[in-house]
Amino acid sequence: MIDLDRERLVELMTEQAEIGTTADGGLDRQALTDADRDARDWFRDRLEEAGLEVRIDAIGNVFGRREGTDPDAAPILVGSHLDSQPNGGIYDGALGVVAALELVFALNDAGIETVHPIEVVDWTNEEGTRFQPGLQGSGVWVGEYDLETQYETTDAEGRRLEDELERIGYLGETPAEPQEPYEAYLELHVEQGPRLDRSSADVGVVTGVVGITWGELTFQGEANHSGTTPMHYRNDALVAAADVATAVRRIAASLGSDTVGTVGSVDVAPNSINVVPGEVTMTWGFRDPDDGVIERAREEVVAEANRAADREGVALEYEETMRTSSVDFADRCVETVDAVAEDLGYERLRLESGAGHDAMHLASVTDAGMVFAVSEDGVSHSPEEYTSWDDCYAAAETLANAAVRLAEPVTD
Amino acid sequence: MIDLDRERLVELMTEQAEIGTTADGGLDRQALTDADRDARDWFRDRLEEAGLEVRIDAIGNVFGRREGTDPDAAPILVGSHLDSQPNGGIYDGALGVVAALELVFALNDAGIETVHPIEVVDWTNEEGTRFQPGLQGSGVWVGEYDLETQYETTDAEGRRLEDELERIGYLGETPAEPQEPYEAYLELHVEQGPRLDRSSADVGVVTGVVGITWGELTFQGEANHSGTTPMHYRNDALVAAADVATAVRRIAASLGSDTVGTVGSVDVAPNSINVVPGEVTMTWGFRDPDDGVIERAREEVVAEANRAADREGVALEYEETMRTSSVDFADRCVETVDAVAEDLGYERLRLESGAGHDAMHLASVTDAGMVFAVSEDGVSHSPEEYTSWDDCYAAAETLANAAVRLAEPVTD
Repeated sequence: MIDLDRERLVELMTEQAEIGTTADGGLDRQALTDADRDARDWFRDRLEEAGLEVRIDAIGNVFGRREGTDPDAAPILVGSHLDSQPNGGIYDGALGVVAALELVFALNDAGIETVHPIEVVDWTNEEGTRFQPGLQGSGVWVGEYDLETQYETTDAEGRRLEDELERIGYLGETPAEPQEPYEAYLELHVEQGPRLDRSSADVGVVTGVVGITWGELTFQGEANHSGTTPMHYRNDALVAAADVATAVRRIAASLGSDTVGTVGSVDVAPNSINVVPGEVTMTWGFRDPDDGVIERAREEVVAEANRAADREGVALEYEETMRTSSVDFADRCVETVDAVAEDLGYERLRLESGAGHDAMHLASVTDAGMVFAVSEDGVSHSPEEYTSWDDCYAAAETLANAAVRLAEPVTD
Repeated sequence: MIDLDRERLVELMTEQAEIGTTADGGLDRQALTDADRDARDWFRDRLEEAGLEVRIDAIGNVFGRREGTDPDAAPILVGSHLDSQPNGGIYDGALGVVAALELVFALNDAGIETVHPIEVVDWTNEEGTRFQPGLQGSGVWVGEYDLETQYETTDAEGRRLEDELERIGYLGETPAEPQEPYEAYLELHVEQGPRLDRSSADVGVVTGVVGITWGELTFQGEANHSGTTPMHYRNDALVAAADVATAVRRIAASLGSDTVGTVGSVDVAPNSINVVPGEVTMTWGFRDPDDGVIERAREEVVAEANRAADREGVALEYEETMRTSSVDFADRCVETVDAVAEDLGYERLRLESGAGHDAMHLASVTDAGMVFAVSEDGVSHSPEEYTSWDDCYAAAETLANAAVRLAEPVTD
């Protein structure tokens, strides 16, 4: 087993947390801003300090390569993302990048060689707040997104992604695609949910990423004076919407203990205390590890919305705005993470990720796996996000040892 | 019975509809604007044309007086309001003012004297959109609102009511209060609801105005990632709010066929498809002719909100933001309106007003009654508001003859 330098891990975390810091101690380091450039520069300096060969690809992903002993062996890729939400926390994906850096520093310190090369990566625009979609760098790299299309995406001020990559000096020359087959991909990220924190586990062994259906429902009724319109003459869009909000909770409960269902957004028009709501637009969202369950959830929410619209005499329009399939991580990666954590003496919890991660994309081109660090109270995308140094260390140590095991250390 | 001049009624309606007209054929004639001033000037000219003595009081109410034969007899007051919503229709209260004008023109044409004086009135700021509260002129006149306090009310640009009254030339010298006891008050207004239009009735005989409870509920839960937060760890403010929206409909249905209950406004934070709602603010509104029912509705919605908050583990704050008592119009006025309409051969529907009107205030100082004109489809406060000339005439003829009957015509 390889020992990480806990002090250096904390120091690296602290250094990156000082780039793009907000007044309340969080981060505003959205993709391709000056703060993101500074974080990338810091990352590149650390890669070079560790003696790694750095390359930047055409979508701005930054790689550092530590060669293996076998020139024909496929690399193990380890990393995450340094960009943040506009009001994010200091852990999120940054902990995963720092843990990958610490892995190579620790290998250097111990003089350990591996059969397979180890590459460390910072993916471009995981968050998707300034430019959409999120997971942009990894999506292009695995061929899920088209590079030229992504170049044309713009931020709220109309600035093109390609121009911003060039402006900050990260429009790289390496093609944004794998240059060779990869052996495996491992990613450490904070959980962003409460399951680890509310269990006795030290680290999370991620088995996959749930599938998603997102959609939008619009009920069109008739806006009328709330005092002069008798109940039986009403076509109240909000009454129908409330039925669906209640049904989403019921549908999630009926489909399984892993299913989550949420109405996150409701917009009422004209939204006046004195007017019967004429139009309501609301969202649905369901996630589950089983794609069949996702499909049933979509069918049931639409059926429920139709029934509610019929009861209330309002028109319904709906659209499924996003559907993603669930992803199962490679058994080999899951088992390696689990076994390593056990060997390190950590209590593990196996769980699906409810949020999307770059590892989802990577799973389409190589064996992928993930380690989750504890998120206190499950808080994320907030300056309040917190993972204790103990929990950071446990997750980083698990990640590092899993990567080394897959990279096959050369025993001397 | 007195015959109105249908052509003149239409002409008067058309003339006033040309003051403050919007591009879509509606009216923007908010209180104390230039358009309101022009409408007042037009009204004053018509009063003088009819030979009435005009007086303007300290809150801008405009009165015209047609003397009776008995110097000791108390006057019959007839009128409504010429101000409109920012995007209102041409009927609303204007039809009531025009009908009162046509009444005095018709009395003049027929050479009819009455024992009691007849006064025609245009009340200041019924709508309450530019300055709050609405029903402002009648409220001051009956002593419900304090004049000096109302002078200090300001519009969105900070302009004081008193200054605007002075600017448009309607800060009158007559004290804003009854100068003598009044015999009765009659008001014609469009229904602003669908009940007459969906019945076979030609005119509405208004028996009173419903009481109101308005309130605001705020559920405070916890905003969390919608993908990573299992259902049993959620405190979803919207789930509680949806329960209450459904309950408002049920509470209204359980309390009586005259009860209306509405959730008009819902605001969700952060209102993102991907976040469990952390806070929801919503309104309640109930109206009923029975003040006891209003109190029960308030109790029940608060009890339901508490149960919903407990179930979901969210905090609840609530406030009743308005309560008005119901008003019963004087039997004498109701019966006179009904009898006159019957004598004129009109089908009548007796109904409570679900909206507030100046007659509510007048009922505290004299016998008050109202006539409703049909509102097509119940549409009001909209350029789409429509009352056919037949329906305008039926309501105006009913108003005029009820006023004359109360004023006791002198038969020669």
